[in-house]
Amino acid sequence: MPSTHIIPTLDDVAKAAGVSTATVSRCLNTSEKVSERSRLKVMKAVEMLGYTPNFGARAMAAKRTFTIGAIIPTMENAIFARGLQAFQETLYANGYTLLVSSTAYRPDVEAEQIKALIARGADGLLLIGYERDHSIYKYLERRGVPTLIAWAFAQDSALPTIGFDNRASMRALCDKVLDMGHKKIGFISGIIAGNDRASERLQGVKEGMRARGLDPNDMPVCESTYEIENGANAFETIMQGAYTPTVVMCGNDVLAVGAMQRAHEMGLKVPQDVSITGFDDIELARIVSPQLTTVHVPHREMGSRAAEELTRMVEHVSTGVSCQLDSSLRLRGSLRVLD
Amino acid sequence: MPSTHIIPTLDDVAKAAGVSTATVSRCLNTSEKVSERSRLKVMKAVEMLGYTPNFGARAMAAKRTFTIGAIIPTMENAIFARGLQAFQETLYANGYTLLVSSTAYRPDVEAEQIKALIARGADGLLLIGYERDHSIYKYLERRGVPTLIAWAFAQDSALPTIGFDNRASMRALCDKVLDMGHKKIGFISGIIAGNDRASERLQGVKEGMRARGLDPNDMPVCESTYEIENGANAFETIMQGAYTPTVVMCGNDVLAVGAMQRAHEMGLKVPQDVSITGFDDIELARIVSPQLTTVHVPHREMGSRAAEELTRMVEHVSTGVSCQLDSSLRLRGSLRVLD
Repeated sequence: MPSTHIIPTLDDVAKAAGVSTATVSRCLNTSEKVSERSRLKVMKAVEMLGYTPNFGARAMAAKRTFTIGAIIPTMENAIFARGLQAFQETLYANGYTLLVSSTAYRPDVEAEQIKALIARGADGLLLIGYERDHSIYKYLERRGVPTLIAWAFAQDSALPTIGFDNRASMRALCDKVLDMGHKKIGFISGIIAGNDRASERLQGVKEGMRARGLDPNDMPVCESTYEIENGANAFETIMQGAYTPTVVMCGNDVLAVGAMQRAHEMGLKVPQDVSITGFDDIELARIVSPQLTTVHVPHREMGSRAAEELTRMVEHVSTGVSCQLDSSLRLRGSLRVLD
Repeated sequence: MPSTHIIPTLDDVAKAAGVSTATVSRCLNTSEKVSERSRLKVMKAVEMLGYTPNFGARAMAAKRTFTIGAIIPTMENAIFARGLQAFQETLYANGYTLLVSSTAYRPDVEAEQIKALIARGADGLLLIGYERDHSIYKYLERRGVPTLIAWAFAQDSALPTIGFDNRASMRALCDKVLDMGHKKIGFISGIIAGNDRASERLQGVKEGMRARGLDPNDMPVCESTYEIENGANAFETIMQGAYTPTVVMCGNDVLAVGAMQRAHEMGLKVPQDVSITGFDDIELARIVSPQLTTVHVPHREMGSRAAEELTRMVEHVSTGVSCQLDSSLRLRGSLRVLD
């Protein structure tokens, strides 16, 4: 046995098993070419020594580490949770381990994490949304690491995208809101800088207003990080302004739940006094009372399709095919027809 | 420029910068020993080539990868989200990147992920809870990778623990429930096999009952995975049994929110017809109506203390010091005094 602080090497395994290092290597990578007797000796030595093939040796032999990296904006609030869970389950079924890191929506942190995951030997990467500095795309191209974008679909993206059209999805909800007689909309948006999903959703509402002859410049817009408390504060700011909307549309469900809470605290009834809408259809949307009208996004389908396609890219079966998924409206109690 | 699919090496950087590979290595690892002129040349070449020190080279030079791995049971439901966010923020402030993987509460998946993270060069690991196969602890000891346990405190654990006493915390809530006149308790538990947090919480309730002369064997216990829908089903099962409890205590807030939803659907008023309690005090607890009585766990403090201590362990400043944190009760509308 080696001392506890020395990491066992391929040599140590070969010595302990009484075979050559080439046999150990073949055994770990292409075990069908090794006799059963050698294989058992090697596996016993591997287990006894606690040997793990290191990145260099294993990557050289298999050309893969069977590790996929996902870099998401946040692990809080469950916005990415369901899609990521499906992504992981599908990867796992295909023999890959998922490592996740989160950026707190900071582009500089994302850039560091991309480099760290590639340095740790990630076979492929999943990124959220397409808006990032050009130098990152150049870097990914130079390193030749298969990378897929999800949570947004963009026809002209440099990398394959598997997601939905954030603008058209929010436009569909806005059309519905206008159909129901609302003319005065307030909007609580996520932070737009560096977040294509947030900016596309806001554009969707503006498009919808213009199409009905309404001026989007009249609409109060409050930007907020995706936290319940901040959504609540943004709602209060909008409702205390000179322009009182009959509906407050929100960039996601987390903001909308904050808006509903603050409405309640301010003595405003939802939807009698003010309607509120969200985006995402996470579990929260059905827990609040009244339930939240929102845009349903096929998170699980998006996650598992992204995993399938990224696996194909890593295994050189595909160079990356984009796929647009449909969203749909969920009309619930928080939105009412205006009298 | 190299072709896009060839990964640049230290040699490539040295050639592009017109310096020796030793200079490049010194520059990347101990830049104070290199002239400013050489440093700038090297950094320009690194940037141009998209060079990332690979695991082997960098680990050899720095003896660290500045990567910490955390393996958590699930990314869904935000049970671990707030603590993990604080863990990551503190690590990041100390110059470390966090990589997270999740196990879906499967011990076999956890074992694989521990090996994968060590193979990817993790300097240290965070694990949740202390209950796992002895061979994992032996493996971690052999590999000499600093490992810390959080979300549970255990005096006699082989590894340092930073967390709270799950049994005593639930016992305190149970005592309160009994003080309020309840004698018939139903319990919805997480899956107990392999989950020390779940089993300790159930034991806390049983202890509390015994201390008042009540027989814990009378208590209906329903085990459920931590999902809202499953909590709802477990609640219905318990309420339709022959023994009708006046309070249903739940192993966490996610189960409790499911119980509240199903109570509502069954036409039962909370807390008039049945009281419901949770554990964790995640955001959900204050979003439901009535708000949920629960045990508040200092998730943020636990996450940041775990990051501080694990950093000290990785940097050989500490061999790992355990720390017990206090939980506290949050008495809200879902629990009432029995007439």
